Amino acid sequence: MLTAVFQVRECDDAGHTLHVLLARRDEEWSLPGGAIGDRDTLSTAAQRHLAEQARLTRVAHLEQLSVFSDPDRVPETRTIASTFLGLVPRDIPTDATSNDAAWVNVTALPPLAFDHAQIVHQARRRLAAKLSYTNIAFALAPGTFSMSELSEIYGSALGYTVDATNLLRILSRRGVVVATGTVGRTGRAGGRPPSLYAFADASLRVTDEFATLRPPL
Amino acid sequence: MLTAVFQVRECDDAGHTLHVLLARRDEEWSLPGGAIGDRDTLSTAAQRHLAEQARLTRVAHLEQLSVFSDPDRVPETRTIASTFLGLVPRDIPTDATSNDAAWVNVTALPPLAFDHAQIVHQARRRLAAKLSYTNIAFALAPGTFSMSELSEIYGSALGYTVDATNLLRILSRRGVVVATGTVGRTGRAGGRPPSLYAFADASLRVTDEFATLRPPL
Repeated sequence: MLTAVFQVRECDDAGHTLHVLLARRDEEWSLPGGAIGDRDTLSTAAQRHLAEQARLTRVAHLEQLSVFSDPDRVPETRTIASTFLGLVPRDIPTDATSNDAAWVNVTALPPLAFDHAQIVHQARRRLAAKLSYTNIAFALAPGTFSMSELSEIYGSALGYTVDATNLLRILSRRGVVVATGTVGRTGRAGGRPPSLYAFADASLRVTDEFATLRPPL
Repeated sequence: MLTAVFQVRECDDAGHTLHVLLARRDEEWSLPGGAIGDRDTLSTAAQRHLAEQARLTRVAHLEQLSVFSDPDRVPETRTIASTFLGLVPRDIPTDATSNDAAWVNVTALPPLAFDHAQIVHQARRRLAAKLSYTNIAFALAPGTFSMSELSEIYGSALGYTVDATNLLRILSRRGVVVATGTVGRTGRAGGRPPSLYAFADASLRVTDEFATLRPPL
């Protein structure tokens, strides 16, 4: 099993960008992961490998992606990989990774082992899709945030600019984010201190159902 | 690997209801499926087992559900099951299943092997969720349909009544269904012959994204 874990991190040259956690194995960069033990479920195996290979123990959201089963994906040994998407909030310190693990900007990946680049690609697509109809960003955002910070997080994950005013309108109408009643520090651009918001829920929910298709109360 | 295939079928006592395809193995009802061959991908294996165990070759939509990996899900032999959700349109004849396969109303399932009832449950939940933000019903509906037929299909899959007028309003606003310009036969209740509609697409798409989060053109 293999896990693509994302975190929005500061990048010297490019502001905040989406990073993926990589592990070095046999001189090659790959996604963290490995075999499933006798008493493991897939998700306990995923968590164990992240802790062992990258000292990462605080994943706010972990969900199964698909199973990669092409007979030739790994030469010689038939290997079927169950894969996961993991997300770490921006304010969780994760620098203390081992020497054999690194956070890498997703737009500048080194060559990866086997089909791991495809797995990262699928994980990014899943994240982008879920940003559009669920509250999944709770697992990337810090506990409280200004809307300009949150739009930066959405923008990093989606790969294009997201307008903070529109984002606030849509996320508050859907009950995804709520105002905390507090303000943050004035940004570099000066002006009034920004209002701070928080996610209403700390687990995944679909926020954007057709109203007609809701179950009766 | 195991597949939960659904079709909306006529049920003598209950009108149209959602049915799931079951296979009898070792005197027990189970989901169709089995081992993955050396040259199989998961989805070729799924299709092969459906053809062999139930003579089913026309599945309009097949997608991976999650992997069931509890160490004790199958006693004695460690067995990890990748699972699929399959959908068959209502107008595809599927009666010619073998003696060892049957379509069963999901609300009246017999006892199933191992954790297969849980897999059916997860497949139903996935289907219900996707009905609310995608065009997935294309794979359950016939080629053309009246809105009362379509609301019956939604209702069977969701387990509660869906209003045909609301459903038409929401699905046409989102470009999910389009009018064909033809009319069908007058129903049992008499009245004008109903307008017929069709799905705009024959593959899955998310129809309900936040407009603000669409990629720029």
